[in-house]
Amino acid sequence: MKIGFVGLGNMGAPMARNLLKAGHQLRVFDIVESAMTSLDQAERAESAAQAVQGVEVFISMLPAGQHVRDLYLSEQGVLSVVQPETLLIDCSTIDPETSRTVAAAAADQGIEMLDAPVSGGTAGASAGTLTFIVGGVADALQRARPLLEVMGANIFHAGASGAGQTAKVCNNMLLAITMAGTAEALALGVANGLDPAVLSEIMKQSSGGNWCLNGYNPYPGVMDGVPASRDYEGGFLVDLMSKDLGLAIDTARAAGSSVPLGALADSLFALHRTCNSAGRRDFSSIQWLYQPELKR
Amino acid sequence: MKIGFVGLGNMGAPMARNLLKAGHQLRVFDIVESAMTSLDQAERAESAAQAVQGVEVFISMLPAGQHVRDLYLSEQGVLSVVQPETLLIDCSTIDPETSRTVAAAAADQGIEMLDAPVSGGTAGASAGTLTFIVGGVADALQRARPLLEVMGANIFHAGASGAGQTAKVCNNMLLAITMAGTAEALALGVANGLDPAVLSEIMKQSSGGNWCLNGYNPYPGVMDGVPASRDYEGGFLVDLMSKDLGLAIDTARAAGSSVPLGALADSLFALHRTCNSAGRRDFSSIQWLYQPELKR
Amino acid sequence: MKIGFVGLGNMGAPMARNLLKAGHQLRVFDIVESAMTSLDQAERAESAAQAVQGVEVFISMLPAGQHVRDLYLSEQGVLSVVQPETLLIDCSTIDPETSRTVAAAAADQGIEMLDAPVSGGTAGASAGTLTFIVGGVADALQRARPLLEVMGANIFHAGASGAGQTAKVCNNMLLAITMAGTAEALALGVANGLDPAVLSEIMKQSSGGNWCLNGYNPYPGVMDGVPASRDYEGGFLVDLMSKDLGLAIDTARAAGSSVPLGALADSLFALHRTCNSAGRRDFSSIQWLYQPELKR
Amino acid sequence: MKIGFVGLGNMGAPMARNLLKAGHQLRVFDIVESAMTSLDQAERAESAAQAVQGVEVFISMLPAGQHVRDLYLSEQGVLSVVQPETLLIDCSTIDPETSRTVAAAAADQGIEMLDAPVSGGTAGASAGTLTFIVGGVADALQRARPLLEVMGANIFHAGASGAGQTAKVCNNMLLAITMAGTAEALALGVANGLDPAVLSEIMKQSSGGNWCLNGYNPYPGVMDGVPASRDYEGGFLVDLMSKDLGLAIDTARAAGSSVPLGALADSLFALHRTCNSAGRRDFSSIQWLYQPELKR
Repeated sequence: MKIGFVGLGNMGAPMARNLLKAGHQLRVFDIVESAMTSLDQAERAESAAQAVQGVEVFISMLPAGQHVRDLYLSEQGVLSVVQPETLLIDCSTIDPETSRTVAAAAADQGIEMLDAPVSGGTAGASAGTLTFIVGGVADALQRARPLLEVMGANIFHAGASGAGQTAKVCNNMLLAITMAGTAEALALGVANGLDPAVLSEIMKQSSGGNWCLNGYNPYPGVMDGVPASRDYEGGFLVDLMSKDLGLAIDTARAAGSSVPLGALADSLFALHRTCNSAGRRDFSSIQWLYQPELKR
Repeated sequence: MKIGFVGLGNMGAPMARNLLKAGHQLRVFDIVESAMTSLDQAERAESAAQAVQGVEVFISMLPAGQHVRDLYLSEQGVLSVVQPETLLIDCSTIDPETSRTVAAAAADQGIEMLDAPVSGGTAGASAGTLTFIVGGVADALQRARPLLEVMGANIFHAGASGAGQTAKVCNNMLLAITMAGTAEALALGVANGLDPAVLSEIMKQSSGGNWCLNGYNPYPGVMDGVPASRDYEGGFLVDLMSKDLGLAIDTARAAGSSVPLGALADSLFALHRTCNSAGRRDFSSIQWLYQPELKR
Repeated sequence: MKIGFVGLGNMGAPMARNLLKAGHQLRVFDIVESAMTSLDQAERAESAAQAVQGVEVFISMLPAGQHVRDLYLSEQGVLSVVQPETLLIDCSTIDPETSRTVAAAAADQGIEMLDAPVSGGTAGASAGTLTFIVGGVADALQRARPLLEVMGANIFHAGASGAGQTAKVCNNMLLAITMAGTAEALALGVANGLDPAVLSEIMKQSSGGNWCLNGYNPYPGVMDGVPASRDYEGGFLVDLMSKDLGLAIDTARAAGSSVPLGALADSLFALHRTCNSAGRRDFSSIQWLYQPELKR
Repeated sequence: MKIGFVGLGNMGAPMARNLLKAGHQLRVFDIVESAMTSLDQAERAESAAQAVQGVEVFISMLPAGQHVRDLYLSEQGVLSVVQPETLLIDCSTIDPETSRTVAAAAADQGIEMLDAPVSGGTAGASAGTLTFIVGGVADALQRARPLLEVMGANIFHAGASGAGQTAKVCNNMLLAITMAGTAEALALGVANGLDPAVLSEIMKQSSGGNWCLNGYNPYPGVMDGVPASRDYEGGFLVDLMSKDLGLAIDTARAAGSSVPLGALADSLFALHRTCNSAGRRDFSSIQWLYQPELKR
């Protein structure tokens, strides 16, 4: 299949590589020219507009809503040149409002578009085991599915345009709350003499059980192979979790919802970032906020 | 086995009945005389002190730390009459400090004592499927195990005296955070047009996954047979969750820990109790705080 | 003086009227034509661009940052036609980032611009007793001062461009925290049998003293002539406080600061808006969130 | 006047000294014998019970509720020996419930008792400029007033027994919220380039105005002679503010109130204590939590 791909950062590049490996033809573009060097087998476009011309599917993976608006809606943007039969898939994690706006503009031209934010990080992108949470019509998802299956292991259909973003935002807000809550509970237990491994096991099998306890324990030494056991290097960065919490809070404000726990989690990660210079650590390092003595 | 049992409330009575059914001999006492009527096969004691005399194991199930102190430590309390070979098991959910104090006083007399708070509610008490989280020495737990297995399905050894209480407090604080966080995420999704069942399924299989999403979904109509689907009747009452959060906050204060998410969850349940008169509803009714329109 | 004025809403119209009364010549514009009817003595412009031509000072009063960007920066916006000697004053309450961006664009053309958000509400706008918090160079403020004194009673110079917005955002976040905190303290006292007037008097004279206790007591019946004593009609709307808290949270995020109390105040006002349908009440009605029994 | 005085710590000793200076006869007791050495002109009692015998007024100043219960209610406590005409004044800062209980027990014996917690710290105790917030009947306060005026500058009558404690708890919770909120607003401004002195001045004169901005500014260098300008040495310790916040939270729980901002302030001070080892610093050092770069 002929595919256009724009945005070849830490996530986009390995996703594109997996499409190449699966035998697809790619035309790629990134404003940072060096980002394209690792994709020798792909054709290089001179611009985003050129990358979309003549392809069956066009995929974008960008950092923020403003970039997505610019890419698709600007005067010489993707929507100004795209052919009606091309399927558009935006894999960026951005605000649902932007996804809805861009998809509506595409629909006005008779073009199908999906918002398909991912989770799984750079490791999942490389391994082709990402999770896609997709918004848009079912038919378009049907067309996209073979490609998404090349890049990912789980594909969820969340609803209409923007629903992929909303579902990801909800999930990641809940993850932030659960991770910080788990760290808080473990710190409380340890301060009262409990063994963190024993307490983790009890809560995992009880009503406190959650994804973090199952496979991403934030307490150093409890679980092998997780960021907590390598000084919180790698993983899902605090800075990225803060970005997602910002999206959650904005999404709540726009809808008139209140997210008190999400907002407090956001404040705690911000305090953690400042007090522990932890923006570039895995987000499970929030354990440090509760127990500064764990810091080396 | 000859067993003394004090405290025959909503939890204690069915626990005692299960022991009777299993063929044990019970001597029971409750300050509310009528509480003993449902236990015809048990011998009635005139006082707590009498209930402990000559038994191999003595079990208590009381509402608060002050009751436990009075029962064991008062002038004519259990410790003033108990024989050295009797094993003491306190199943009350109370502050760890009291459990440690009473167990230490027992140890001074050469008597073994366990704190063994339960979860599972009145349904679990009746069905004999409670979870016991036990603090005390391993030998004592070994002795207690056959009886605990009559009343429960899961038995965890959390550590030394008081550790059972601490572990339960940690678990239930995390549960409160997770339940309120799940309700918050679902409300955010619904306010943005998502189907709560679809969003629940996505988060359950993703990094937001937790015990509430697995089997105790707070959103009406998503899951059958849970409190959310019967107007939040029955289940684990908001008032009881508030009690447990109070224990968590006190335990944190005593140890110099901070529990910001636990404290906010406590405030949210308190606001919910006040604004929605919800003290006697299941705690998953916190969904109402985020979406008052769900209230009939 | 010849003045251009764009944005004649609830705040802008009375501000413009005060300038007219003081003998200034106004050329006005609002996209809502009827907004100009109450300003018969002013010349009506056909567009914002026309309103700025040939005036010595140009004043804008708009709802949000996007409007300000459009007014000044769009292709046929104010900056495309303004003469170098015209002083620009934006009185909108918006994000500091937008103020800085627009002022920088003006400076590039050699034009002086002030951000001068106000507090004091519609009553202060009518009475000419607004407070102006101004960002920009001192000389420009010197030029603006005679006009600001016509419209307001207090003028603060907060610093360079954007500083007016930042200072207002900081002040109003602190006000939200103080008002909700005062309501919380009063509710706690009343729940324990205190007279709210006696408690208010004690705290006012003690270390809890603050602007709300001095002249804007949130408890019904304690103070005459305040919103609390007329069922929270009029005053400073919850919706507007929520807007300002949104700006505070965005400003904090942009700078990497954390504002946990501001974020919680925002959540509490959002819960209040939802649970009590209180968006159009004065913000001191947050008292209801703590004491639903006060609602009629 | 003949006065009994028990509890001669950092606060009690200077209070007693002021009574001696004013010409009163004191009989004093403290369980720490050395605490009495600085009061040579006072008669030393052998026990609290002895200190109360034959005096017209009996004053106590103890650390916590349990001490007050023990002093007055234990078998050989004050109430077992006090004469009916003696006026009892407890100046300890404790939970309102204990104050009510002890005062009720006194009333049962026909004895008048006041709860009269103070604010003003050790400096105010030495200078005789404390603030007393008094609970109890007006007649008893009338009798106490001449003595309180020797030790303090402001005397408030908050209501019936326990009301002094409740009012102090409410005030100090509001103070904690206001101080942390002020620090948060200043940090937000500084992160956006404002001068903390300019921002302080603007907020002081605007709707953010409060007692902290008036005379206890938390930002280093803004105000002379405050703890912030001497590295937060002295003043009102974080540990003591945490104690008062604990009382506020307990008082709220007992009454079924919710205090979300008070609870978050408590968590923030606890995080500050842990992350910055700040328990023995003035509470305005909470500024460090927001701006770790201010720490030397």
